[in-house]
Amino acid sequence: MDAVNLSSLLDRFSERWAPKTIAGLNDYDVKIVKVLGEFTWHTHADTDELFLVLDGSLTIQMRDRDVRLSRGELFVVPRGAEHCPRADIETALLLIEPRGVVNTGDAGGPMTAEAERLS
Amino acid sequence: MDAVNLSSLLDRFSERWAPKTIAGLNDYDVKIVKVLGEFTWHTHADTDELFLVLDGSLTIQMRDRDVRLSRGELFVVPRGAEHCPRADIETALLLIEPRGVVNTGDAGGPMTAEAERLS
Repeated sequence: MDAVNLSSLLDRFSERWAPKTIAGLNDYDVKIVKVLGEFTWHTHADTDELFLVLDGSLTIQMRDRDVRLSRGELFVVPRGAEHCPRADIETALLLIEPRGVVNTGDAGGPMTAEAERLS
Repeated sequence: MDAVNLSSLLDRFSERWAPKTIAGLNDYDVKIVKVLGEFTWHTHADTDELFLVLDGSLTIQMRDRDVRLSRGELFVVPRGAEHCPRADIETALLLIEPRGVVNTGDAGGPMTAEAERLS
């Protein structure tokens, strides 16, 4: 493995809501994703999920509140907490979660995407 | 937990090589640390370790090569790989590793520091 330049890797794709795996950390995957608009409400029953905003801004809607994140801000959605990310502008995120976690969690549906490896 | 602003938290301390825990992700800790100069050669036998440069630049010396990281670049030191971080300018890092991992790994010594919780 070499140094991973986040900006260079983000330049290599444009599709949204399609996470790319860029590194592994034990049995966790480090992913980047571009987002715009609203995702789907879903829950990861068995794991927390880390969001770090690399560019743009993100609202993580939860049932009891919204968490607003700007560039350089992170938030960990607790396991079992239903959430729905929304971006009003084109936004780039870094995600960290255990390998095999599906982006739509329990909800499934058309936004479900297998994370492709980008290297 | 609220949104974690990395820049704001970095403004709250100045000591070097003293990691601060800023979030938890399952049984992993997310830490920030300021560094300058050379750390100590050490190994984490049981875990990978993620480094993301938030500001400045870092050389991760390993026995077979050096990995140079600028702002916005990350690297995962594989478990068992002896390494020694070095920063020639004041540098801020984000680290992710399992809870309880000691910064100096197997080496111990005066740079060993318990990560303090910053919230």
